[in-house]
Amino acid sequence: MRILIVNVNTTESMTEAIGAQARRAAAPGTEIVALTPRFGAESVEGNFESYLCAVGVMDAVMRYDQPFDAVIQAGYGEHGREGLQELLEVPVVDITEAAASTAMFLGHKYSVVTTLDRAVPLIEDRLKLAGLDARCASVRASGMAVLELESQPERAVDAIVQQAAKAVEEDHAEVICLGCGGMAELEDKVRSRTGVPVVDGVAAAVTIAESLVRLGLKTSKVRTYAPPRAKRITGFPLPDSLGR
Amino acid sequence: MRILIVNVNTTESMTEAIGAQARRAAAPGTEIVALTPRFGAESVEGNFESYLCAVGVMDAVMRYDQPFDAVIQAGYGEHGREGLQELLEVPVVDITEAAASTAMFLGHKYSVVTTLDRAVPLIEDRLKLAGLDARCASVRASGMAVLELESQPERAVDAIVQQAAKAVEEDHAEVICLGCGGMAELEDKVRSRTGVPVVDGVAAAVTIAESLVRLGLKTSKVRTYAPPRAKRITGFPLPDSLGR
Amino acid sequence: MRILIVNVNTTESMTEAIGAQARRAAAPGTEIVALTPRFGAESVEGNFESYLCAVGVMDAVMRYDQPFDAVIQAGYGEHGREGLQELLEVPVVDITEAAASTAMFLGHKYSVVTTLDRAVPLIEDRLKLAGLDARCASVRASGMAVLELESQPERAVDAIVQQAAKAVEEDHAEVICLGCGGMAELEDKVRSRTGVPVVDGVAAAVTIAESLVRLGLKTSKVRTYAPPRAKRITGFPLPDSLGR
Amino acid sequence: MRILIVNVNTTESMTEAIGAQARRAAAPGTEIVALTPRFGAESVEGNFESYLCAVGVMDAVMRYDQPFDAVIQAGYGEHGREGLQELLEVPVVDITEAAASTAMFLGHKYSVVTTLDRAVPLIEDRLKLAGLDARCASVRASGMAVLELESQPERAVDAIVQQAAKAVEEDHAEVICLGCGGMAELEDKVRSRTGVPVVDGVAAAVTIAESLVRLGLKTSKVRTYAPPRAKRITGFPLPDSLGR
Amino acid sequence: MRILIVNVNTTESMTEAIGAQARRAAAPGTEIVALTPRFGAESVEGNFESYLCAVGVMDAVMRYDQPFDAVIQAGYGEHGREGLQELLEVPVVDITEAAASTAMFLGHKYSVVTTLDRAVPLIEDRLKLAGLDARCASVRASGMAVLELESQPERAVDAIVQQAAKAVEEDHAEVICLGCGGMAELEDKVRSRTGVPVVDGVAAAVTIAESLVRLGLKTSKVRTYAPPRAKRITGFPLPDSLGR
Amino acid sequence: MRILIVNVNTTESMTEAIGAQARRAAAPGTEIVALTPRFGAESVEGNFESYLCAVGVMDAVMRYDQPFDAVIQAGYGEHGREGLQELLEVPVVDITEAAASTAMFLGHKYSVVTTLDRAVPLIEDRLKLAGLDARCASVRASGMAVLELESQPERAVDAIVQQAAKAVEEDHAEVICLGCGGMAELEDKVRSRTGVPVVDGVAAAVTIAESLVRLGLKTSKVRTYAPPRAKRITGFPLPDSLGR
Repeated sequence: MRILIVNVNTTESMTEAIGAQARRAAAPGTEIVALTPRFGAESVEGNFESYLCAVGVMDAVMRYDQPFDAVIQAGYGEHGREGLQELLEVPVVDITEAAASTAMFLGHKYSVVTTLDRAVPLIEDRLKLAGLDARCASVRASGMAVLELESQPERAVDAIVQQAAKAVEEDHAEVICLGCGGMAELEDKVRSRTGVPVVDGVAAAVTIAESLVRLGLKTSKVRTYAPPRAKRITGFPLPDSLGR
Repeated sequence: MRILIVNVNTTESMTEAIGAQARRAAAPGTEIVALTPRFGAESVEGNFESYLCAVGVMDAVMRYDQPFDAVIQAGYGEHGREGLQELLEVPVVDITEAAASTAMFLGHKYSVVTTLDRAVPLIEDRLKLAGLDARCASVRASGMAVLELESQPERAVDAIVQQAAKAVEEDHAEVICLGCGGMAELEDKVRSRTGVPVVDGVAAAVTIAESLVRLGLKTSKVRTYAPPRAKRITGFPLPDSLGR
Repeated sequence: MRILIVNVNTTESMTEAIGAQARRAAAPGTEIVALTPRFGAESVEGNFESYLCAVGVMDAVMRYDQPFDAVIQAGYGEHGREGLQELLEVPVVDITEAAASTAMFLGHKYSVVTTLDRAVPLIEDRLKLAGLDARCASVRASGMAVLELESQPERAVDAIVQQAAKAVEEDHAEVICLGCGGMAELEDKVRSRTGVPVVDGVAAAVTIAESLVRLGLKTSKVRTYAPPRAKRITGFPLPDSLGR
Repeated sequence: MRILIVNVNTTESMTEAIGAQARRAAAPGTEIVALTPRFGAESVEGNFESYLCAVGVMDAVMRYDQPFDAVIQAGYGEHGREGLQELLEVPVVDITEAAASTAMFLGHKYSVVTTLDRAVPLIEDRLKLAGLDARCASVRASGMAVLELESQPERAVDAIVQQAAKAVEEDHAEVICLGCGGMAELEDKVRSRTGVPVVDGVAAAVTIAESLVRLGLKTSKVRTYAPPRAKRITGFPLPDSLGR
Repeated sequence: MRILIVNVNTTESMTEAIGAQARRAAAPGTEIVALTPRFGAESVEGNFESYLCAVGVMDAVMRYDQPFDAVIQAGYGEHGREGLQELLEVPVVDITEAAASTAMFLGHKYSVVTTLDRAVPLIEDRLKLAGLDARCASVRASGMAVLELESQPERAVDAIVQQAAKAVEEDHAEVICLGCGGMAELEDKVRSRTGVPVVDGVAAAVTIAESLVRLGLKTSKVRTYAPPRAKRITGFPLPDSLGR
Repeated sequence: MRILIVNVNTTESMTEAIGAQARRAAAPGTEIVALTPRFGAESVEGNFESYLCAVGVMDAVMRYDQPFDAVIQAGYGEHGREGLQELLEVPVVDITEAAASTAMFLGHKYSVVTTLDRAVPLIEDRLKLAGLDARCASVRASGMAVLELESQPERAVDAIVQQAAKAVEEDHAEVICLGCGGMAELEDKVRSRTGVPVVDGVAAAVTIAESLVRLGLKTSKVRTYAPPRAKRITGFPLPDSLGR
């Protein structure tokens, strides 16, 4: 089976890291194809950039011309998943929701630790819309920007570990979701510092996408995610498959 | 004061209707400028098109090169308002929220009557995120597509009036929000058929935007709607003001 | 247009301050008439006094013998708005709800800063009933009594500014609603200390009332706010219009 | 022990019926004193009348010059309980809440059957504020006015039984709360028609008040229900105990 | 009337203490029979033990061969009440719910103070299912194990009083529910330290059970708590009345 | 990897059917071991039986003396999962939650179709506790008893298909969860009749358990699901591993 995993920003090195992380989680026989949007922001840290990313991700997926079995949107708290679900029949999995859904099997309450404070309301809103917020103890910000996770890994790990510990001790979280991509060592450090399971959204999403494919389950097309109606799309740099 | 009102689709005749409607509601001295996105769908009836519109609307506003005092996004249930709030300091008003907020001053519960069934979950989700859903009795679909409102006005009015009556009689709505644009006669017909106040989102949004301007109130910039951080935006057909 | 604004307590100097505040917010052509109840408490700081005020306010409005276009009840967290809505066809706006509704257009979450701790549950309950609590970050008390706002203005400003700052920093409020009347300088000081927009309920209510009038919207009469049924009202010192 | 039970309207025959009902439920040794407000409406069917009743009930209780151990406010969905709790140390029980609280020990969900449709939102709001709404399946109106319960008892019984049956069959209620006073035969008829337990609010309130007294429990005075602060109450026809 | 009160653990001295506490609360003429399960854990502090207790309590009640009028399950946060309600027609009262229900008549918000931290989620879940959580300010743990309440009473009292004080001061609780059994002096100390009413679940449950019996109210049998269907129960050491 | 799947009732033929269903969903290399409780009811249709099953399932798992990697509890709406989580470190998956969690990736709202009406509140309560109810459109009963699914398969399929269709058409479900075990043909028939994805809880749970194992995730042990404390368990027919 082939799963597309789409980075939400235009930074190729992050796409590579996400792809590598997905491959580590994938079952033998699963091919992971990591895509970078043609347009958008080099990191997504707010609503403006998130809306750009929603379109950039749809564009990247529709432009991909090989068959595939599922799509993962690899952004924490970003918009766009619902649009992909309309455009595709294959399952679409958002890593924010995959992480929360997985965490809920492991403990009574979970917390998310993310990058900047301004990302917190976006994540809270995505969890609320997804109906996965009832057992969310907190969404905490480490204060590190997305690109600083790569450029200052040590400081980032420290900041994230610290917030994870607070989530467990003060907010009664029993599981931590890492609301930011790409650091293999992060999981281990958070787990050993807090003693609780740590869920990486990319890994969780890969196994969920594989499971849905294996069970033959596809996106429901009766109402919310029915295919877009045939109509004129004007002046937008989208592939023919979109720009009817 | 000058208020921009942005259509969410690319159909110029709807932009004109929305502009006219806004002007009827505006106070003397308020200039209404109605904008059409350069790109997007001819009507917005789902998530894919809604995400395109979010970017199209931001593009249209940022491309506008004259001063203005507030912006209204004239789509029912569409995405994008949060992005505009990041990009601007002036108030941004979404007509879905304006209608709900206004209706709540007039009765114990309100209902929304909209176009197609597939729009219902989008509107419900926007109201939930906005925290304006607690007194929403129902969101009902008339089964008419957006463009049919213009092409088949009589049938549209009948279908909408019928759902409004059901909302009052079966769902205990005491106010009706019209979740679809541009028919002057609609308000009167729904009001006379149901006996309840009818709120048009465009008109409501105009008065709210005017009020915020007059009170000197602007979008809070401390967290969620802080300006986008300076960063590289790649390959996107946005005006310079956006595509840094 | 003429708007009645009714103080909830019997202290004339507060009525005057409220009237002045309303006039500053009013559009040209709006006449503000500020009323003081004939009976009730010199300040309203609890349920007993709030229920007295509900009747005192209804009495004051029904006793007013000139035409008017809307009524504002100028108490933060007090009872009574629903009774006025039954008695009148013109719009009735409560300043607690006006402030919350306005704040929700300006930021992701808002907080209210009020007088005494005992007022907090009343305000929380009013916001819950109004369905405006989902985005309320907190209701905080400054510890100042209503009349101390006038008698000890400096201490009051300090105490309120301090709680507003805590609301922003600890509760993640992005907008502050002032849950107490009459200090022009308060808005500026809270804004400059916290950097967030500050909403005064009286000013917000004036613009909302004006907007409803201009849009021709009236209270729904189909169910909850239908006129009181004709019946015997015994032994109550109400005007003829009420005491049928 | 002596328990005051206060009618919310001025109709003496209803006070007598309520008193009789309370006595049937009372334990040996409990003295029931039924009070009628000096002022107010002959029946309470809406917010205006409910606010009058709130003051009328407080007046009646404060005017009563003998010792007593608890107070019951015998109105379904009316305002006022919180005011009494401030004024008194002895427990105050509202029959709307007493019925709901009792019903929740008997079945998974309960419904309320009341008089006019316009009373439904008042009852729903009281239950929401009381935090007793989560297991409320529905509040249904029989369409009978309060005074028709006395003047047309047969028709009233039929209408109420019919709604109770619908609540069980359509709304999945497992217990019925009678949201209207004074008909001994009603309980039996609803029970035999629906097969579910029927809770009368007056009877439930009597046992709850007795229990609180026997356990030595009093209203908490630390915050919400602290005694009113000493202040000037102007021009209100209240007993000295209130009109300080 | 005879009320069975069933301890949830197998420690006889706790059964005796619970029985004594129940007798202090009971009306003259009420016979309290305190039962200890034949099997189960010596203290219940988690889900595994709570599920054992659910069966142990049902076994103890069904094995009791004299008539009785009501049953109280005397465990804080434990499972089992719903099973008893299916097996019996007489009322079944859980002390967790009895305490919460009683506390809600005394103050705006209540807190529970219990034993170990691990009991907190169980209690929170029981209150959520019971629909009694809306006015729960917090559930706090004293850090004392169940059996330490007996073996180290002084330390236990200190720890509990300290958490009760925090609940009042930090969480704005106005009433405290003691989520742990058997210490007469505890109520007084918490009350004098915090100044708020203190509700003991056993005492509250006794008065509620008595009230339901006196009002002739029984468990609804139409749906959720219908008697178990006739079927084979295999290999379980239950009395004949259960093990059909 | 080896996954235990435990039937909640004592009917061996159902255990076999469940095992077979699990094997169809399992990845190559996953060994499914299906267990039947030694004691309990031949079918679980209510709270009494559900509590028996909770203990029976824990007993069956603890008695199993080979290593295993995860446990699935194969009952819809039954108690017990939390107890297993305390006793084990390996992941524990309940099929009710697995189905809901999976359905939420496929459509905006889902419904559950189950057996008897009396099972509905149990399922609703499990979903509420699991925090998976926000997007549940309805839980509907087919009116078929558990054992009738085997004895009258045709009638059962018809009844279930009919309720599934109603869930889609009237409740706006976009995905159907089958809240009852063991009929391979059921999925196909419901899918072809309603046009929406159909989720079988057993299959969903197998893939989730496999995923958790592959990701190295285990139950959090910091608070709610910490191992039971060492203590005396009296007179209970449990294996040594439990009956310490």
